[in-house]
Amino acid sequence: MTRNEPALPTRDGGLVRVRLDVAYDGTPYAGWARQPGLPTVQAALEEALATVLRAPVTLAVAGRTDTGVHATGQVVHADLPAAPPETLVRRVNGLLDPSIRVLGVGVAPEGFDARFSALGRRYAYRVADAAYGALPTRRHDTAVHPRPVSLRRLQAASKPLVGLRDFAAFCRKREGATTVRTLRRLTWVRDVDGVLVARLEADAFCHQMVRSLVGALLLAGDGRKTTDWPAALLAGGIRGGAPVAPANGLTLVEVRYPAASRMALRARATRRRRDEA
Amino acid sequence: MTRNEPALPTRDGGLVRVRLDVAYDGTPYAGWARQPGLPTVQAALEEALATVLRAPVTLAVAGRTDTGVHATGQVVHADLPAAPPETLVRRVNGLLDPSIRVLGVGVAPEGFDARFSALGRRYAYRVADAAYGALPTRRHDTAVHPRPVSLRRLQAASKPLVGLRDFAAFCRKREGATTVRTLRRLTWVRDVDGVLVARLEADAFCHQMVRSLVGALLLAGDGRKTTDWPAALLAGGIRGGAPVAPANGLTLVEVRYPAASRMALRARATRRRRDEA
Repeated sequence: MTRNEPALPTRDGGLVRVRLDVAYDGTPYAGWARQPGLPTVQAALEEALATVLRAPVTLAVAGRTDTGVHATGQVVHADLPAAPPETLVRRVNGLLDPSIRVLGVGVAPEGFDARFSALGRRYAYRVADAAYGALPTRRHDTAVHPRPVSLRRLQAASKPLVGLRDFAAFCRKREGATTVRTLRRLTWVRDVDGVLVARLEADAFCHQMVRSLVGALLLAGDGRKTTDWPAALLAGGIRGGAPVAPANGLTLVEVRYPAASRMALRARATRRRRDEA
Repeated sequence: MTRNEPALPTRDGGLVRVRLDVAYDGTPYAGWARQPGLPTVQAALEEALATVLRAPVTLAVAGRTDTGVHATGQVVHADLPAAPPETLVRRVNGLLDPSIRVLGVGVAPEGFDARFSALGRRYAYRVADAAYGALPTRRHDTAVHPRPVSLRRLQAASKPLVGLRDFAAFCRKREGATTVRTLRRLTWVRDVDGVLVARLEADAFCHQMVRSLVGALLLAGDGRKTTDWPAALLAGGIRGGAPVAPANGLTLVEVRYPAASRMALRARATRRRRDEA
């Protein structure tokens, strides 16, 4: 939410950078990113914004979620010809299917970039290990694991994965891209309904990293692998050992940014360096 | 769940009384109770049980939920010709749509009746008052209120409704039926997502009582009525003042029963009184 942040338009060629906070049920979408002929969150949202603003809109996103992955705290930015009207949220939500909601819109602080300004991302993963599966009211955002899982084994297996590590064993490889990340948190609880909930936070996650981590941890949690095994996979650094857990258990919960004041400082520092170069 | 209860079959003409714990997403159903030509939870569940058991099954329910109302802790009983096979839950769930799950099955303790043995029912009501409505991942079990609501006003207005009261003002009238109930709990919180969650517990609720209470409280909560108003409605005893809140926010969470030992004692006492009459 950016409502209380100072309205300092980032003007570049007369454009105003706007931050949008967005939530979606990923079930009916082929992920965030536009793909020809497929329903995507980006396409639906850009289309609704373009209709209200009567101009084409291109969105930059903090976390490109895969097919079937949900968000309660996705963040995007767009450069608009003018500051958005106060009625934008209501009008865009009026056009969108209820599976996507714009939670808030505001002029972004100076230097803000939804993807590159982010300090961290938080995800939650929900998985039911009961014999009956997931409760019907939560079946859309809860994966089902076909075997009973020990919470203690999950916790023990998760601990050594936290920290600055090379997560190559849990990343879909992209040429030239690093797989080193700082995993700040990886904790598990059982909620009141008995569902296992993982909470993960990192500076950034590489592609399918959360689902690969959860997939490996569930194998350790249900006893088919030892609790040392996920850490051994990490140390080995070779992908393919960890199964990828289902998409429907995963939700992008929050993207963290510096305070607006520090974002502006950082932006000025970046600009100065560029001027001196 | 009745798995750990002693297996004391209630035999009556060779029948075994079985307790089933059930959850459902009420969205696609015209409520619990069978209605010709409409999809109902009772019809779907009786059909799946009959297929597995190769015999017709009639279910008695603890809480007859209305169209669109959900359950995470519904309880039903059935009298079967024999104790159910261990594979019943897995096989019935295999036939059912994921919008209905059987959580557990067991032979009921002596004297058990899903409806008449119940000591209390617990409901939860979820309502979002954010400008954007409900989070997409929870839109199926969260109602939307179009105005901001004060949690303190909700709490203040709820307090005087708790206790042994005549809830005629909040009950759909049935000829000859009492509207006196003991409301043991009516509390409100905001959850981590900002959703207002009411928790209600009573010995029993009359028809549409929870949704009428919530409808009146939301009017007091958003300032269109005073916080004294719901209690004044209660004192007036005339139905029609309170709007009925939407069904999709309501979930039957739990049905409470006496301990198995006390249920048997109570059943014996009831039978003795009947014998002496």
